[in-house]
Amino acid sequence: MRRYLRVDWRAGLSLVGTLLALLSLAFVVPILVALAYGGEDLWVFVASMALTAGFGVALRRLDSEPKPGAREAFFVVAFTWLFAAMFGALPYVLAGNGTVAYPVNALFESMSGFTTTGATVMGDISFDTHSRAIMMWRQATQWLGGMGIIVLAVAILSQMAVGGAQLMEAEAPGPGISKLTPHIAETARVLWIAYIGFTALLMASLYALSVVAPELAPEMNLYNAIAHGFSTLPTGGFSTEARSIEAFSPAVQWLIVPFMFIAGVNFVLWWHVISGDPWELLRDNEFRFYLGAISLFSLVGTVILFFDASLQTPPTGQIGGHFERSLRYSVFQITSMTNSTGFANMDFNEWGHSAKALLLFVMFIGGSTGSTGGGIKILRWLVILKSLRREVFTTIHPEAVRPVRMNGQPLDEDAIRGIYAFTLLFLGLFFVGFLLLSADASRLPEFNPHTLDLLTASIATLGNIGPGFGVVGPMGSYNGFPVTSKLLMVVYMWIGRLEIFPVLVLLTAAYWRS
Amino acid sequence: MRRYLRVDWRAGLSLVGTLLALLSLAFVVPILVALAYGGEDLWVFVASMALTAGFGVALRRLDSEPKPGAREAFFVVAFTWLFAAMFGALPYVLAGNGTVAYPVNALFESMSGFTTTGATVMGDISFDTHSRAIMMWRQATQWLGGMGIIVLAVAILSQMAVGGAQLMEAEAPGPGISKLTPHIAETARVLWIAYIGFTALLMASLYALSVVAPELAPEMNLYNAIAHGFSTLPTGGFSTEARSIEAFSPAVQWLIVPFMFIAGVNFVLWWHVISGDPWELLRDNEFRFYLGAISLFSLVGTVILFFDASLQTPPTGQIGGHFERSLRYSVFQITSMTNSTGFANMDFNEWGHSAKALLLFVMFIGGSTGSTGGGIKILRWLVILKSLRREVFTTIHPEAVRPVRMNGQPLDEDAIRGIYAFTLLFLGLFFVGFLLLSADASRLPEFNPHTLDLLTASIATLGNIGPGFGVVGPMGSYNGFPVTSKLLMVVYMWIGRLEIFPVLVLLTAAYWRS
Ligand SMILES: [K+]
Ligand SMILES: [K+]
Repeated sequence: MRRYLRVDWRAGLSLVGTLLALLSLAFVVPILVALAYGGEDLWVFVASMALTAGFGVALRRLDSEPKPGAREAFFVVAFTWLFAAMFGALPYVLAGNGTVAYPVNALFESMSGFTTTGATVMGDISFDTHSRAIMMWRQATQWLGGMGIIVLAVAILSQMAVGGAQLMEAEAPGPGISKLTPHIAETARVLWIAYIGFTALLMASLYALSVVAPELAPEMNLYNAIAHGFSTLPTGGFSTEARSIEAFSPAVQWLIVPFMFIAGVNFVLWWHVISGDPWELLRDNEFRFYLGAISLFSLVGTVILFFDASLQTPPTGQIGGHFERSLRYSVFQITSMTNSTGFANMDFNEWGHSAKALLLFVMFIGGSTGSTGGGIKILRWLVILKSLRREVFTTIHPEAVRPVRMNGQPLDEDAIRGIYAFTLLFLGLFFVGFLLLSADASRLPEFNPHTLDLLTASIATLGNIGPGFGVVGPMGSYNGFPVTSKLLMVVYMWIGRLEIFPVLVLLTAAYWRS
Repeated sequence: MRRYLRVDWRAGLSLVGTLLALLSLAFVVPILVALAYGGEDLWVFVASMALTAGFGVALRRLDSEPKPGAREAFFVVAFTWLFAAMFGALPYVLAGNGTVAYPVNALFESMSGFTTTGATVMGDISFDTHSRAIMMWRQATQWLGGMGIIVLAVAILSQMAVGGAQLMEAEAPGPGISKLTPHIAETARVLWIAYIGFTALLMASLYALSVVAPELAPEMNLYNAIAHGFSTLPTGGFSTEARSIEAFSPAVQWLIVPFMFIAGVNFVLWWHVISGDPWELLRDNEFRFYLGAISLFSLVGTVILFFDASLQTPPTGQIGGHFERSLRYSVFQITSMTNSTGFANMDFNEWGHSAKALLLFVMFIGGSTGSTGGGIKILRWLVILKSLRREVFTTIHPEAVRPVRMNGQPLDEDAIRGIYAFTLLFLGLFFVGFLLLSADASRLPEFNPHTLDLLTASIATLGNIGPGFGVVGPMGSYNGFPVTSKLLMVVYMWIGRLEIFPVLVLLTAAYWRS
């Protein structure tokens, strides 16, 4: 076989095996939680750890000295997420509780975790049905996924020139970080310091608030602080509470907002800030656009909610006419839905048409490049807007030559075309996903989602957001979908997270043979 | 003023005036119809003719020797359609019958006519409410709009390099047809021969069928033959029957199909066929893709309808299991919705989810460049698909240089980028239109369209298709929308028809001053 394929698939699988073996160490987290809470589901995680490590080690044997090249990177990236999702699903199946015990549901929940999507098929999100260890594992999959995404985005996709990703601000301080294979570990170390640091800061802040001012955070405790720290920085959106962040006090909601915002920023910029050059952040065009978009849409949302007198939401009561509530619900939801976090501090299905239209709009924006956010991403929209402005100008002045600039540098036209191609492909997949979900939904007469629910289900999975509207709303569930739809959405979460092209090239004959 | 503006707006308006004066001659058609049917509404059209001619002549006086250049072309194109719609609305207001007597509704109906959209706000489509002359004027506006579109597409947009339109097959036989101003009249003459010829052939065929075999076409007569000849070749979709083409027999429906198909093909290719080179048609990549897409989707639709046993549609009865009906409904609707005609031979709201999803999908395709069809258009999708394939290839082989080819010629990269830009802008406007219609719909509590209705209202107006789903279905009406939504859709029909950029440049300071 090896002679006929140009791809060194043995080397690729061997590297995937190494990464799976490393991933198996992560089961230590739920094992510790199980031990702390009387040992429930302890065997589940020990068994999962053993199976994952065993499979990883077996894969490693395919090639004892793997030398994966640039071409194998596509392979490694695609299969790492796929296998991580499959082995991460084991605990749900082995524990055998609730809807996630069914293999397809378990795979959905696990893929949703590792892709930091946050869409759930868990029927009953409570400790009545699931152990503390299982619920913490669900949160931890998002945090692990986020670690992978940062490295993927900064060190790998930018080198693959996938969909214009080469334009990303990927120059972290320190030597040679822009070269692929030899320096991945170095890049990872630098960015993970920021990622781990912010996570620890959020966990500590939430816990400190619950200890210092328990009256301000009655529902917060160490377990919840850790659980939500795990799902905020990866723009994950899983919660151990059925009502997401609505379960917590306004003080906790406000505390989470800046960390959600941080999660949607290129971590290379945070590394600049940490290493003493905060101005790099404010000079960056993508950051300024991200900050501007979230500020503008939060303001618009606040005005809409403030003047919507009909909005009644027990237990929080009237929003219309109440400034702090209008501001809090708007800022929280706009930040959460723009950068693909997917947390909710209320059921926004209750909002009026205008406010919902605004939320639907921002769902198509996405996070920054080099962040854990999903979707089309800020940088691409910024390049598209600048390029469209130029297109109008050159329609009037066909002779004019005007480069599109980003951070002062003229952009390569190939990169601009790559960004257009990615964006159209993303929107095309979103639309096809919506059509397939629509056609598939009609197979189940008792499952009657609205068109808008299906539209948002497609973008919420492909864009790794999590919740949408209606049945897939923030307090809802993807459990009602037919199995075929669930499998489609598993694929959508996977390819959306990997920015489509790494999976797409695997489907071409040119990749394997030429 | 003139010294400060680089645009010679006087010359532009003068030319618009000339075109309006010519347009006033078209009122002869409804005047003849009024005379044939007892003189009802005769004064309406005489008055409309006088007002239009008077305004046109007045505008001409702004510049007695207009020398409009390339820049003024944007201005002339945008204002010609706007003024045509405004003066074409006069008869509806002056006749004073039904919903279209209200000025905004009259403008909507007239813009829908001249842009060949076919969306209607006419509450009662029947001769009980409206005169034969008014109904024929409504049909004639589409045919006049189609005449304008062919010249616009082939002679003007392709020279403006709007959204990649420079790639169009615009080389008609005959000397120098590719140069702008001096040869517009020549290009127009050549293409109008084809347009007028196909229209006359359809009218004659329909009428001949009703005379020779009245049992095969019981509802057809001379009036209906002329009326539907007027709205087929411009991919218009207006009908004098409330139930569109469902009002006619299967024989009539089958007869209309090839003419609908013809209307979506680049008329330059028809000129080649007429002048003795039919192979030019089959060699053209865009035509082959158009033929292939309609064949494929018609086949898929036939299969879906055939196996949908639940489909009951009085008066036509069962479709599922009936081959001719499945084929006829599928071929007719797929052709009609793909190339933006918008005719219906049944209320496709009754179709199942899968068949409706297919229809929704093809609504985003559009006609060929140089045809009367609207939307994103076949050529652009073909270039995008080829470019995406290359993008995947260069992701694997970053060093490879592979031009995208069309009809064997390598394409200019600027044109490819222009096509991406146009398509994304079109899709962006579609989405924003949907959001604005959604927010606006909530102002009228008694108006409760589904999300899908609003989605299709946006694409059906921007893409000049006409009908959508639900309340805006083929047997429905746009009359229920708030006035603000109607005005938005008037603008959408207008900018969609002109391929966006000619209107967009008018909104920039660079157009007027630099
Ligand atoms: K998420
Ligand atoms: K139409």
